[in-house]
Amino acid sequence: MPATNRQLILHSRPKGLLAPGDLQLTETPLPELQDGQALARVKYLSIDPTMRVWMAADTYLPAVAIGEVMRAGGFAEIVESRHPDYKKGDRVTGLTGLQDYVIVDSSAKHFFQKVPKIPFVSDTVFLGVLGMNGVTAFFGMEIAQPKKGETLVVSAAAGATGSIAGQIGKIRGCRVVGIAGTDEKCNWLTKDLRFDAAINYKHPDWKEKLAAATPNGIDIDFENVGGEIMQEVLNRMNLHGRVVVCGLISGYTKENVGMASLGTILVKRLRVEGFIILDYAPRFMEAATQLGQWKMFGKIKDRETIVEGLEKAPDAINMLFTGGNIGKLIVKV
Amino acid sequence: MPATNRQLILHSRPKGLLAPGDLQLTETPLPELQDGQALARVKYLSIDPTMRVWMAADTYLPAVAIGEVMRAGGFAEIVESRHPDYKKGDRVTGLTGLQDYVIVDSSAKHFFQKVPKIPFVSDTVFLGVLGMNGVTAFFGMEIAQPKKGETLVVSAAAGATGSIAGQIGKIRGCRVVGIAGTDEKCNWLTKDLRFDAAINYKHPDWKEKLAAATPNGIDIDFENVGGEIMQEVLNRMNLHGRVVVCGLISGYTKENVGMASLGTILVKRLRVEGFIILDYAPRFMEAATQLGQWKMFGKIKDRETIVEGLEKAPDAINMLFTGGNIGKLIVKV
Repeated sequence: MPATNRQLILHSRPKGLLAPGDLQLTETPLPELQDGQALARVKYLSIDPTMRVWMAADTYLPAVAIGEVMRAGGFAEIVESRHPDYKKGDRVTGLTGLQDYVIVDSSAKHFFQKVPKIPFVSDTVFLGVLGMNGVTAFFGMEIAQPKKGETLVVSAAAGATGSIAGQIGKIRGCRVVGIAGTDEKCNWLTKDLRFDAAINYKHPDWKEKLAAATPNGIDIDFENVGGEIMQEVLNRMNLHGRVVVCGLISGYTKENVGMASLGTILVKRLRVEGFIILDYAPRFMEAATQLGQWKMFGKIKDRETIVEGLEKAPDAINMLFTGGNIGKLIVKV
Repeated sequence: MPATNRQLILHSRPKGLLAPGDLQLTETPLPELQDGQALARVKYLSIDPTMRVWMAADTYLPAVAIGEVMRAGGFAEIVESRHPDYKKGDRVTGLTGLQDYVIVDSSAKHFFQKVPKIPFVSDTVFLGVLGMNGVTAFFGMEIAQPKKGETLVVSAAAGATGSIAGQIGKIRGCRVVGIAGTDEKCNWLTKDLRFDAAINYKHPDWKEKLAAATPNGIDIDFENVGGEIMQEVLNRMNLHGRVVVCGLISGYTKENVGMASLGTILVKRLRVEGFIILDYAPRFMEAATQLGQWKMFGKIKDRETIVEGLEKAPDAINMLFTGGNIGKLIVKV
């Protein structure tokens, strides 16, 4: 058993992007394993925009306390066990936190669950398509109630969740238009993921291009971003459109995550619905089963951006807000 | 047949409240009745906040054009007919406009429909409980999906629509809290309409009173007002709450009808849904049948504020935004 554990501790709440020192790398002794505990080596960490929310304030989960290990989803392998349900070599996902090792026990707070080894599939699939991003896209699209022939717009479309949501839209028979921040991302969406169009919002004429790509207006907004991009999408929404508020990334590094025009909601009879994926935990298996089939049959493709080294996790978090990743962003510990 | 018709013509788009001259009273010759037309004497006019929207801009209906008769719902009686479906003495409701007489024909644009004479019931019921306000409250509460024991808050609760929405909430087994702008209105809500509580938002401690009146938080917001009142209600919404955006009165006399916090919608998993009652036209009979029963059995009570004289209609419209009316506001022509 290893003697020490490297951990990224929340030292100060960031203003804007993470500054050096907001998360501090520390080395702490590993406590002796108690009965009912197992020790797991964290192998991959899921880097998600919501982590920035956890660093800032109590929301759908309590904020990470100053001095605590930074919360994060991860994939880990049991290296030693005094827990009857886990043996060495078992593989788990859950809220491992940004650290080398995590104590696994029976408490529910870390959402640990065992996952199988799937032949020919990377273990990181349990953080992406079969993890939080996949189920988030799945249930978000359930809320959207897509109908064949409708137009779906996805923001942050080249991100881990957006890219899956758009592909579910294609499976459901929608015209799917993605919004992303580089031409490379847009090419990935249209060439590999078969989006009908993709708009680089950093081009000066992106609003005209969005209009050209949505000639029949927009029926569904799978919203990951908020702010000016969302407002332009709302401007093009059709009557009785649905706005699924999955995330508001553009606001997470600001004081305020932004507002939606009530006049637009009223006059266009929109349904604007926020959701938090943890509410769907009892149905995760249902979603993962479907997502696994789609992935196996090539109907959902994914892509990863892998950053090596626990110490690089703070930089990786910032990449989410500066547009540095394509697809699922992972730190390999 | 009368020779002339008094009409209130939209002369200029108001800024804020209506100013003298925004609507101008004119006397115009009545054209000779053609085959397929009937002439109806307007007896009662429905004065509703949405009229201020119609004066300002194209929204769910085109704005009233400068020089046109101001659009308004009304109750009228046929005085002469060259239309096969109407005979003298028939009674109709529809978009009569602010005028003494209206030409009734078969075009759909005025939404005319014949209504019966109901013993012991005022004709004005077809403008209120059995009219637009009743069906608006009915379908708005359908969107809200109230469950027994939930807490419903209604803003502009002493208005024609809000007062019915709250009473439907009581029928559905909700705890119902109204927000209104005078103690007299609040007393009417609690004493006559059996609301569980009513809050006068003009009292300095209204937010504390709202908190005290909603000890289990708020599950449904039947929103008629927007602005600061709505924001405070959103602050007290429970997870998975529903916000039915029926109207945004506080913003109709301003440049912008206001915004809702997307962060609140996301973190509280709210469903915010706008609706426009005209979409429900095919189901009006269903609603009116139910509303008529409730009214007959005393489960829905109503009250009217009647202003006498077509020329007073502009002042009456302003009353809606200064809080002058209790219940249904009607101009008796």
